Amino acid sequence: MGEPQQPDGPEAAKPPLRVGMVGYAFMGAAHSQGWRTAGHAFDLPLRPVLSVICGRDAQAVRRAADRHGWAATETDWRALVARDDVDLVDICTPGDSHAEIALAALAAGKHVLCEKPLANTVEEARAMADAAEAAYGRGQLAMVGFNYRRVPATALARNMIAEGRLGTLRHLRVTYLQDWLVDPQFPLTWRLRKELAGSGALGDLGAHVVDLAQYLAGEQLAGVSAMTETFVRERPLPVGATSGLSAVQSAGTGQVTVDDAALFTGRFTSGALASFEATRYATGRKNALRIELNGTHGSLAFDLERLNELSYHDGTEAATHAGFRRILVTEPDHPYLDAWWPPGHGLGYEHTFVHQARDLVHAVAAGRRPEPSFADGLQVQRVLAAVEESAEKNSVYTPIAA
Amino acid sequence: MGEPQQPDGPEAAKPPLRVGMVGYAFMGAAHSQGWRTAGHAFDLPLRPVLSVICGRDAQAVRRAADRHGWAATETDWRALVARDDVDLVDICTPGDSHAEIALAALAAGKHVLCEKPLANTVEEARAMADAAEAAYGRGQLAMVGFNYRRVPATALARNMIAEGRLGTLRHLRVTYLQDWLVDPQFPLTWRLRKELAGSGALGDLGAHVVDLAQYLAGEQLAGVSAMTETFVRERPLPVGATSGLSAVQSAGTGQVTVDDAALFTGRFTSGALASFEATRYATGRKNALRIELNGTHGSLAFDLERLNELSYHDGTEAATHAGFRRILVTEPDHPYLDAWWPPGHGLGYEHTFVHQARDLVHAVAAGRRPEPSFADGLQVQRVLAAVEESAEKNSVYTPIAA
Amino acid sequence: MGEPQQPDGPEAAKPPLRVGMVGYAFMGAAHSQGWRTAGHAFDLPLRPVLSVICGRDAQAVRRAADRHGWAATETDWRALVARDDVDLVDICTPGDSHAEIALAALAAGKHVLCEKPLANTVEEARAMADAAEAAYGRGQLAMVGFNYRRVPATALARNMIAEGRLGTLRHLRVTYLQDWLVDPQFPLTWRLRKELAGSGALGDLGAHVVDLAQYLAGEQLAGVSAMTETFVRERPLPVGATSGLSAVQSAGTGQVTVDDAALFTGRFTSGALASFEATRYATGRKNALRIELNGTHGSLAFDLERLNELSYHDGTEAATHAGFRRILVTEPDHPYLDAWWPPGHGLGYEHTFVHQARDLVHAVAAGRRPEPSFADGLQVQRVLAAVEESAEKNSVYTPIAA
Amino acid sequence: MGEPQQPDGPEAAKPPLRVGMVGYAFMGAAHSQGWRTAGHAFDLPLRPVLSVICGRDAQAVRRAADRHGWAATETDWRALVARDDVDLVDICTPGDSHAEIALAALAAGKHVLCEKPLANTVEEARAMADAAEAAYGRGQLAMVGFNYRRVPATALARNMIAEGRLGTLRHLRVTYLQDWLVDPQFPLTWRLRKELAGSGALGDLGAHVVDLAQYLAGEQLAGVSAMTETFVRERPLPVGATSGLSAVQSAGTGQVTVDDAALFTGRFTSGALASFEATRYATGRKNALRIELNGTHGSLAFDLERLNELSYHDGTEAATHAGFRRILVTEPDHPYLDAWWPPGHGLGYEHTFVHQARDLVHAVAAGRRPEPSFADGLQVQRVLAAVEESAEKNSVYTPIAA
Repeated sequence: MGEPQQPDGPEAAKPPLRVGMVGYAFMGAAHSQGWRTAGHAFDLPLRPVLSVICGRDAQAVRRAADRHGWAATETDWRALVARDDVDLVDICTPGDSHAEIALAALAAGKHVLCEKPLANTVEEARAMADAAEAAYGRGQLAMVGFNYRRVPATALARNMIAEGRLGTLRHLRVTYLQDWLVDPQFPLTWRLRKELAGSGALGDLGAHVVDLAQYLAGEQLAGVSAMTETFVRERPLPVGATSGLSAVQSAGTGQVTVDDAALFTGRFTSGALASFEATRYATGRKNALRIELNGTHGSLAFDLERLNELSYHDGTEAATHAGFRRILVTEPDHPYLDAWWPPGHGLGYEHTFVHQARDLVHAVAAGRRPEPSFADGLQVQRVLAAVEESAEKNSVYTPIAA
Repeated sequence: MGEPQQPDGPEAAKPPLRVGMVGYAFMGAAHSQGWRTAGHAFDLPLRPVLSVICGRDAQAVRRAADRHGWAATETDWRALVARDDVDLVDICTPGDSHAEIALAALAAGKHVLCEKPLANTVEEARAMADAAEAAYGRGQLAMVGFNYRRVPATALARNMIAEGRLGTLRHLRVTYLQDWLVDPQFPLTWRLRKELAGSGALGDLGAHVVDLAQYLAGEQLAGVSAMTETFVRERPLPVGATSGLSAVQSAGTGQVTVDDAALFTGRFTSGALASFEATRYATGRKNALRIELNGTHGSLAFDLERLNELSYHDGTEAATHAGFRRILVTEPDHPYLDAWWPPGHGLGYEHTFVHQARDLVHAVAAGRRPEPSFADGLQVQRVLAAVEESAEKNSVYTPIAA
Repeated sequence: MGEPQQPDGPEAAKPPLRVGMVGYAFMGAAHSQGWRTAGHAFDLPLRPVLSVICGRDAQAVRRAADRHGWAATETDWRALVARDDVDLVDICTPGDSHAEIALAALAAGKHVLCEKPLANTVEEARAMADAAEAAYGRGQLAMVGFNYRRVPATALARNMIAEGRLGTLRHLRVTYLQDWLVDPQFPLTWRLRKELAGSGALGDLGAHVVDLAQYLAGEQLAGVSAMTETFVRERPLPVGATSGLSAVQSAGTGQVTVDDAALFTGRFTSGALASFEATRYATGRKNALRIELNGTHGSLAFDLERLNELSYHDGTEAATHAGFRRILVTEPDHPYLDAWWPPGHGLGYEHTFVHQARDLVHAVAAGRRPEPSFADGLQVQRVLAAVEESAEKNSVYTPIAA
Repeated sequence: MGEPQQPDGPEAAKPPLRVGMVGYAFMGAAHSQGWRTAGHAFDLPLRPVLSVICGRDAQAVRRAADRHGWAATETDWRALVARDDVDLVDICTPGDSHAEIALAALAAGKHVLCEKPLANTVEEARAMADAAEAAYGRGQLAMVGFNYRRVPATALARNMIAEGRLGTLRHLRVTYLQDWLVDPQFPLTWRLRKELAGSGALGDLGAHVVDLAQYLAGEQLAGVSAMTETFVRERPLPVGATSGLSAVQSAGTGQVTVDDAALFTGRFTSGALASFEATRYATGRKNALRIELNGTHGSLAFDLERLNELSYHDGTEAATHAGFRRILVTEPDHPYLDAWWPPGHGLGYEHTFVHQARDLVHAVAAGRRPEPSFADGLQVQRVLAAVEESAEKNSVYTPIAA
C-alpha cells in the first residue's frame, strides 16, 4: 500500500505488487481507487503499490498521478512496460491499443489487467489469449476487466445459480441502457469512432452484459441473431482532448462510425433463450444494466442502478406465499461483504474495482489463473463479432465460432 | 341493461344492444362482466342486453348463463347467429373458429366483437377483414378484442405519445411474461394445440403486445427477426373438458404443437428498434406485460402487474430534477376514469372489458368504425406470420407483408 | 340478482336478500357495484336484490336508481325502513345519521350494513352495538363497512399472522395519506363539518386504519397518545348540493370544524408499539393506506395504492437469501380469488365491496354474526374518542375505555 | 495525503491537516476511509494526513493503524490530544467519552470532529457547545458527525426545499428502522448499556433522523410526545471485547438499560406535524432511514437503503401527468457528484464520510464555522431529552427547551 504503515506492521512487511497503469481518464480514476483501497478493506497477501501511471500528455498525466496517488509518471507506455518497478500492467486505454500494450507487457514478463472489451477484433483478442496462455506457463497472469462480476449482488447470483437454485435455465433477459447520446449535439468522442473504440454500444455496453450473462449462466452463447443501428450519423467534433490517449483537436462535424444501439437474441448451449440490448439512446436510463434469468426452479433479477439489491423468486415455494424478494446484498456472509459495513449500509460502483484488485492480488499471490481470463475475453469478442456479422447479414442466426 | 330500471327511467328508454356471446370460459366470464357493468358505470347511448350465450355442452352453458346473467342459451353458434334478438355477436372461442363464426355473423347482418388473435392464419384474417369492410358499408361494425388498449394507463400513454411527448421513437422494449407452463406436468390444454390455438405464446401473448406496441407507437412494424422454442414437447392429456368449446376426454400424453416462447426484434417504420418476448416459462412472472418506449424527448413504461400506474420520464426537464415518475392513473381526467372512483382507488383487469364494451357501444351508436378494427387484427396476424417465417428461416429479417 | 337468469336456473331459485340502501353518492355507487356483482362472481346462498334506494332529492335519487340498477326509490329513509320488500338496510350516509337509521332498521327487524365510522360518538356507537346485540338474538345481523378487510392482500395478511408467521408483534406502522385538501380553495363539503362527519381525517381515514390494524394484529389498542391539526381553518362554501343527503346551498366561506390530520402512537395489548397517521395533506399521496407489521419471526407490509400486492419478509430464513418479497395476491388459493381471474390479472378497489356483499350474504344465510360487528365498530369509536381526548389533553397517553 | 505524490506535485505542496482519531471500530474504519479518500476524489485546500490513531488495546490499535493507514498509535487519548502533530481530533468513541475528549481537545487548541450523538446528556452537550463557541473565537472549529446530511440525495433535498419547491411544510414522516436486536440472544454490547451509550435506538438512530429532519426542513422541532420501550430486558453478556474502547470480559447475562425503540410525534416551529420512529426490532429492515416531507407545493422522500435515489413529487404540475419521480442522484451537478462517476454509477454509504471530510477540510481552510456545529448537536440532544422526558411523563407533549 502506498500509505504510511506502522514500520513494523504486517502490511509493510507484505511483498509488494507494483502496478503500472496506462490511461488515466474514467477507467484510470476507477482503477486507482481500486488499487488504493483494496489493501485497506481486505487482508491481502500482497501489498498493491501505485508505482507508475502513463499518458501521452505529460502535464495531464502528472496531474492525474498527483490526484490519484501514483508515485511516478511516463508518457510512453513502452517505457512503463520496460520499468523494473512494475509487476503488473493495468491497461485502461481505448480498445485499439489493448492488444499492442498487453502483448508487450506479457513479453516483458508482467502480469496484465486489461479493460474490456479485450480488443477491437477477434484476431487481436486471439493473439492476446494465446500470449496469455503462454505467459501463464511462465508464471504470469492476465485478467480482463469485466468488473460487473464483482458486484456483491452479481457474485451472489452466480453462487445461487451454481448451487442449482434456478434449475434448468429457460430465459435470460439482458439490457444495458444509457442515454447520453440522445442529444444530437453531444460531440464525436473516441467512443464514437470505430478506429479507436472498435464498436459503439455493442463493445462498450454489450461486452459487459455478454460476459455477465455467460458468467451467471455458467454456460456460453451458441449463436445470435442481431440488428444494430446508428441513429445520429454525424456529430460535432469535440474541442480539445476528450480523454486519456485520444486527443482530438479539430472542429466541425464528423461521422459516427460505430453503432448507437445493438439488439440481439441468442441461444445458450443448454437451449435457454436470451435477448440482449445495448443502447445509448434509452432516454432516462442512466446505467440500466439489467439481467433477469428464469429457470425451472426459480428466477433472479439484477439492476445496476440498484446495485445493492438482488431480486430472487424461489419457484419451489408454495405459490400462496411466493414472490420476488429483494435481497439487500449487504450481509456479512455475502460475497466481499466481510470487509465492509453493517447490513443495509450499501456499496457503490467503485467497489467493483476494489474487489477486482482484491481478486487479482489473490490470484497473483497464488499463481492461480484469474477469472475472467483473456480466453474469456476472447470468447466475448467472438460473440460481438457474431453479432456484427448477423447484423450485416439480415439478422440471420450466426453461430459463435469456437 | 339486464337489471331492473325505473320503468320510466332514461336507461330503460335507451335502445338496446342485444349481445349474443359464443364461448363461456375465461374470456366469456370477462366479457360478461364487461357487458353487465358498462351501462352502470357509463352513460351509454345504447343499453347492452345479455341476450344469448352459446356453448356446445348444454348443461355447462346453462350454468354459465345462470351465473353470468344471460337470458338464453344455445348449443350451436349457427343458431345464435341466426337469432333475431341478437344485434352483436361476441366471439370468445379459441382461434380456430373465429373466422367461420365472424364471417357467418357478418353475413347475418350482425355487429361482431372477436377475441384476439383475430384468426389462426393470415388467410382467415384477411377474409375476415374483407368481410368487415364490406359489412361496414352496410352499417355493421367489427372490432377485435385487444383489450389492453383499454387500460387507463395505456390509453393515457397513447395520448401522451400522440401529443409528441416522446419525440422521435428510438426504442421499444416489450415483453409478455407468464409462468404457467414451467411445470412439465401441466396438461395439454387447447392452448397448446396448434390446430385449435394457431400458435402458443406467440398468438396468445405476442398478439397482445404487438397490437399494443403498434397502437402506442402510432406506427407499424416493418420487419422482424425471430426465434421460437418449445421447451417441453410432450405433456399429459387433460382429464375432462378443459374449457369452453374444447372438450378433451382422452388420457395419456400428447404432443405440444405450439411454441412455448417467442423472441423477436424488429424495426418500426420510423426506424425505431424494438424487442419482443412472449413466454409462459418466466418463473415468477404472472402477467408481466411490460412495455417501455424511449423517444428523443421522453420515455414511458407500463407493467400490467401494476396496471394503475404509468411510468414517465420527461427528457426535456433539467437532469438535476428529472426522473421516471409514477403516475397513478386514477385521476378524474384520465381516460375512462370519470366513471369510477376517487384518485388512488384503483381499477382491475376486468375493467378493460367494461371499457371495451363502452367504446364499442359508442361506436355502434355513432356508426363509427371501432378500433381496433379487423384490419388492425389482420395486420397483427401478418406480424405473427412474419415472426413464424423468420423463426423457420434461421431468424433472417423478414419484412411484414403489406 | 337483478339480471335475467335462466327461469329454471339455480340462481333464480335462490331465496332473495332484498337490499334497501340509504345514500347514493360515492359509497352508494360502490355498494351498488358490490350488490350487483357479488352473485355473478360467487356462488352465493342467497340472491342479492337491489330493491330500494333512498335519498332526499327525488330527482337525483331516481337518476341514481336508474344508473345503478335499483328497482325503486324513496326520499325518506323511514319509508325505506318500513318497506316489506327490504330485508337488509345498507346505510351509506354521513356519520351523523348512522345511529338513527340503524336503530330504526334494527327495530324494524332488518339486517343492517352500516358504513364506517359506525357513528359520530361513542354514545351513539354503544347504542347501536347494544341494539345489534339484542337484534342478534332475534336473528338479525349487523355489520360495519370496514371494507379494507376484504382486499385479498389484507385477508391473506390476516391469515398469515393468525398462522403465527410474524411471531410476537413488536411494531405496527400505519398511515392513511391523501392530498385532496392541500388546495385551500377546495370547498367546505360535509366531510369538513363536525356536525355531519363527526371528525375529519380521523374518522374518515383513521377509522379505516385503526380497524385494519387491530384486525390484522388480532388484538386491540390499549391506549394512545395523539395530536391533531386543522391547517386550513376557513374554506369556500360549496355551490349546490355536494353529495347524497347533505345539500349545501349557501355561498361565502365557512369554518372547517374537523381535523385535517391526526397523528397518534399507541400500545397494543401485547405490548407492540404502533404509530398512526391520517391526513388529507400528504401532497402526491392519493390513497396511501399503508400498514407494516414487524414481529419476531417476520414482517408484512401493504399499500392500498398497490392493492394486489403483499410484501412479506420471512425472518426465519437465512439472512443470505432473505428479503421482502412481493406476493402478487392473485393466485386461485388466495382469499376471494377463486371467483376471479388467472394469476397476475389484478382486482380493483371496488372488489372490496363485492367481497363485503359476499361475506354478508353468507353470514345472513348461516345466521352467523358477521365481522366486523357493531361491537367492533364501537371499539374503533372508542379508539377515535381516546385520540381526540389525548389530543385535547396535551397528547397525554389515554387508555382505550373497555 | 498519506499516499505517494509527485514530489513536486500540487498535492504534496498543500498544507497538511493532521488528524488524530480516537476509536477504531465501525466508525473508526469509516472515518479512516473518509480521510484517506477525500483528497483523491476532491481538490482540497488542505492535505488530510492520517497521523495518529488511539485505542486502549495496544495490539488492536496497532492492527487498526496498519489496516487503515495511520502513521502512529496511542493508547491514551490524552496523549493523542497532547501531540504536536495533530491538528484535528476525530472522536469515534461511544458517547460517554465524547464530552471529556472534546473539551480536552478544544482546550489543547485542536479542531474537533465528534461522532453523534454529541453527548449522552444535555449538560455535557451544552458544555461542549459552549467550549466550541469559545474555541471558534480562537480559530478552532468543531463539527458533529451527522454524516447523513452528506448523502448527495439528502443534500439535493435540502437544496430543493431551500428553493421553496415544497412550499409550506405540512408533514414529516421519519423512521430509522433496523432489526439486529430481534434475536434475544444477541449479546449485551456497549450500545445496550446506558452508562456508555446514553440511550438506545433513540440516541443511535433517533439522533440521526432528528438532525436530518430539522436540517431538511430548515427549522426545528418545537415539542414532542413520545413513548419508548425495551422489549428484551436481559441479554447474554458478550465474550471478550466488543469494540473500540469498551472491553467487556465477563459472562452470564445482564440488563439492557436503554430503549429498544422510540416513537414520537412532534410539531415543528412552522406548525408542520411530524412522526418519528427509531427501532432495532423492525424485522427485515436493515438500515431503513426513511424520511418523507409533504408541503403545499410538493413532496420529497428518501430511503437510505436506496441512497442514490430521491423521490420527488411536484405538486404544481397538472395532476394528469404528476407523480413521484425517482431522481437518480448521480448527475454531475448534483451535490458532491462532480468528483465521482458518470450518471447512474452509484455511490455507497462510506462516501458520506468522504464528503464529511471534504466539507470539514474546506471549513478549516476558510476558518468558517462548519455545519452541523456543536450547537446543532446540542439542539438535537435537547430533542432527545424531551423525548425521554415525555416518555417518562405518560407521553405528555413536551416543549424543546431553547
